[in-house]
Amino acid sequence: MKTYLQCIPCFVKQALRAGYLSTNNEHEIKALMDRIGCRIKDITLDQTPPEMGLIIYDEIHKITGIDDLYKNEKKAHIKEAKRLYPMLKKRLQSADDTLLMAVRIAIAGNVMDLGMEKKFHIENDLEHILERDFAICDLMDFREKLDQAEHILYLGDNAGESVFDKILIEAMAKPVTYVVRGRAIINDVTEEDAIDSGLDEVAEIISSGSPAPATILDLCNEDFLKRFKQADMIISKGQGNYEGLSETDRPVFFLLKAKCPVIAADIGVKEDDIVLLSVQKTPMEK
Amino acid sequence: MKTYLQCIPCFVKQALRAGYLSTNNEHEIKALMDRIGCRIKDITLDQTPPEMGLIIYDEIHKITGIDDLYKNEKKAHIKEAKRLYPMLKKRLQSADDTLLMAVRIAIAGNVMDLGMEKKFHIENDLEHILERDFAICDLMDFREKLDQAEHILYLGDNAGESVFDKILIEAMAKPVTYVVRGRAIINDVTEEDAIDSGLDEVAEIISSGSPAPATILDLCNEDFLKRFKQADMIISKGQGNYEGLSETDRPVFFLLKAKCPVIAADIGVKEDDIVLLSVQKTPMEK
Repeated sequence: MKTYLQCIPCFVKQALRAGYLSTNNEHEIKALMDRIGCRIKDITLDQTPPEMGLIIYDEIHKITGIDDLYKNEKKAHIKEAKRLYPMLKKRLQSADDTLLMAVRIAIAGNVMDLGMEKKFHIENDLEHILERDFAICDLMDFREKLDQAEHILYLGDNAGESVFDKILIEAMAKPVTYVVRGRAIINDVTEEDAIDSGLDEVAEIISSGSPAPATILDLCNEDFLKRFKQADMIISKGQGNYEGLSETDRPVFFLLKAKCPVIAADIGVKEDDIVLLSVQKTPMEK
Repeated sequence: MKTYLQCIPCFVKQALRAGYLSTNNEHEIKALMDRIGCRIKDITLDQTPPEMGLIIYDEIHKITGIDDLYKNEKKAHIKEAKRLYPMLKKRLQSADDTLLMAVRIAIAGNVMDLGMEKKFHIENDLEHILERDFAICDLMDFREKLDQAEHILYLGDNAGESVFDKILIEAMAKPVTYVVRGRAIINDVTEEDAIDSGLDEVAEIISSGSPAPATILDLCNEDFLKRFKQADMIISKGQGNYEGLSETDRPVFFLLKAKCPVIAADIGVKEDDIVLLSVQKTPMEK
């Protein structure tokens, strides 16, 4: 997804939120905002929004020396999600359609996003998402592809959400490779977070190499790119991965909650809608 | 009022709104955003927010050559306010407290602000403001000062709102000098707008010389500064004038609706509150 003009004030807001978290010194935060302001020109409208995310967190690192700004939040979210895990497994057992419920649970986890201004309350949001209608639900395609797939490439999004991913991975009962970011950025899931979430018990964990809060193919490592090219089935979680991959010519299932109005409009849904979207470009579109 | 960190994303949003209004070319708007981003560093936290407003509209002028971006909106607002004028005069005649009702009407006009993200609907907002309680209402001071005053310096804010100011000026029944901005900026009232609003029938109209959307004393002309220093009574309309003058050592009555959460917090009220605030610094505070 390209960067829209409306993304620009949002970048600045995100930088300010991160600034407040990284220091109490308002002059240090002002210095960060000055630097971020001057970097707006480095993002063109053809680039994806998470590439600006990368710039923001690089500038924070330069000013504060902090590598993993949301470390404590990530640990807390994983702990909270693990606490909910047994209850969610029970919900799954009593569901009419186990796969659909597992998809819902994985999408519900997607509210755990600290890149957004919106506050979340995982238990309340969970109940809401488990009950609500999908705006797009390509479940038939998803089920069909899953039946045929020998191996699934699963692109993780946030720490905490990763525990909810585990439930979907268990429900799919196929070999899965779970892909994490190349380094800590916002509250995106890293290898350490994935292991902390128990994903090593159900999947192989690899890094995409992407330092951005998204799968940006130009920034990924060769191993990941090879797997991405050859994968039987690709599941992409969250907005960041959608922003990075919405134009790819590989078939991808996007599972997300459209928390941002710009991304919602790009998908063609409304803000707060939940989506299981199969994107498979026809040769014409390619 | 100093610039708060939270003002920074708001500057960027304001620039984007003005960009959309000035051109349909997204690359031209992006170029504006790039320039605005780089100017964030030129505002310190000790300056007032309208000084950034000045920078934003200067950059728009440089890119688009447009001097008076909101010209059509200003004309439409004045026309709409004039249409309401006879009804408001009737309301005033039937009010228990004519002066208080005139103050309310003048404050109601303050919703006509295009520097804010909030949309307004003057007729609906008017009814709401004419009925609601003041968060701060220093009416006794106001009445007392008005009784003693031989001449009033009235600092105008927005075009359209200016017609509502006329009603308060008429109700006060004292000689008034009505002060307009030094040039067109956002939808702030200029000399032309003041005459279009009929203010020349009830007041002397002068320019403060301030090119910013506020009375910034460092940017005002000598004639205004002299009158400001000597004025019997100063009435300041709107947020911009508050931002520029909240630290002045001259006694000022601020009449405004707190449309912005940062300004509301600075005054000590809640967002959307209406205020008639007498600021008279004690020698200690000076």
